[in-house]
Amino acid sequence: MSAPTAAILVIGDEILSGKTEDTNARLLIHELRELGVGLRRIVIVPDEIEAVADAIRELAGSFEYVFTSGGVGPTHDDVTIAGIASGLEVDVVRHPELEAKLRSYFGDSINESRLRMADVPNGSELIEAPDLRWPVICTRNVYVLPGVPELFRKKFAAIRERFRVEPFFVETIYTREDEFDLADRLRRVAASYPHVAIGSYPDFTSSSFKVKVTLESKDSSDLVSAVKALLAELDPERVVTLK
Amino acid sequence: MSAPTAAILVIGDEILSGKTEDTNARLLIHELRELGVGLRRIVIVPDEIEAVADAIRELAGSFEYVFTSGGVGPTHDDVTIAGIASGLEVDVVRHPELEAKLRSYFGDSINESRLRMADVPNGSELIEAPDLRWPVICTRNVYVLPGVPELFRKKFAAIRERFRVEPFFVETIYTREDEFDLADRLRRVAASYPHVAIGSYPDFTSSSFKVKVTLESKDSSDLVSAVKALLAELDPERVVTLK
Repeated sequence: MSAPTAAILVIGDEILSGKTEDTNARLLIHELRELGVGLRRIVIVPDEIEAVADAIRELAGSFEYVFTSGGVGPTHDDVTIAGIASGLEVDVVRHPELEAKLRSYFGDSINESRLRMADVPNGSELIEAPDLRWPVICTRNVYVLPGVPELFRKKFAAIRERFRVEPFFVETIYTREDEFDLADRLRRVAASYPHVAIGSYPDFTSSSFKVKVTLESKDSSDLVSAVKALLAELDPERVVTLK
Repeated sequence: MSAPTAAILVIGDEILSGKTEDTNARLLIHELRELGVGLRRIVIVPDEIEAVADAIRELAGSFEYVFTSGGVGPTHDDVTIAGIASGLEVDVVRHPELEAKLRSYFGDSINESRLRMADVPNGSELIEAPDLRWPVICTRNVYVLPGVPELFRKKFAAIRERFRVEPFFVETIYTREDEFDLADRLRRVAASYPHVAIGSYPDFTSSSFKVKVTLESKDSSDLVSAVKALLAELDPERVVTLK
């Protein structure tokens, strides 16, 4: 009943410097959620081979899927392929199938700069899909996606269904009780239902509630029991029904 | 001339599951930029002591400042203080000054759940500011900020000026040349100006340009020279002036 785990690695100086706002991780948060995959980490690093390598080493070893965003173009600031290779301790090699595809597509205008798009970490698999001109490169459990939002979206859409598992179930309770006063009761219910994740979020701006409590599980009957157990602990007069 | 470095650590299941959209890291990206601080890493982890501890160990050892967002309330899912303490290998202790403040503020309604707000990693410093009711907790180079956006904003605003250094200088060039054809020239200019960060961003949606090139440095005269060197390499007919 536990979800497969995933991490997102965003590579890009432009995100860290605020020149560009990340939309790819934000999209993937919702995509993975909808697919039932448990996103456990998001890491954003600059365009540096060592930074990418360190992150890949850790993430690829800790989670079932790693999705990278950005750094896959032909210029000096595109270091994702080299970083993944270094993190996984393999060489960068020119993929013959990808090279053939590039030569056939570019014809006479093929050059070394374009051929560099066929360089992949050794052992990479190409994932083809009907509506993709270029395959998704997958090295072990690392899926390499482009930084340009339109392309990121399109490439992920082409491979998303391979990750689908049973969905998450979530219930939300709003209360006018104070979070300080709730803490012990939440702790007790959380301890009794280890497969239900309980989150507590105070709100200082709403006039209708003070705390939003979320309960979440892959096991719907466990979730129903936990909600029941929590409601029995709360002051019914101060539980609020919100849309 | 090199910028002080910083990392942001966001703690929260609600961000990774898409229930809440992060706005704190997004705010801090722009704040740090404006202050002249070089943001080098953003990491988002779930509400787990080990995950926070691992991230803190790495980030606090690698960057000059670490700012955490979230996980500082009184409930079971608030694990930031314990995670920071574990990552820095110190105990969690009750801070006498903070405890006195809490007792004076809450009076008769003080209880263990409220007093837990005085628990800090051993060795923490309290940063007071005129418009803050509660000080910012700082443990070594780790600044602990709340997850609730209004409070995050207010607390960071109260301490921001202590981080200000000389600003970044940035120039942007738009061109209708193809990124594949630019790659070698960009690489040459980047190699000649190691203190100027050059980024290359293709755009497949604009009709007026194909690639946006950004040049950035703390050294404004170095930046001017790099821009001049790059413009000398580009086809002037295809350089585009954009607002």
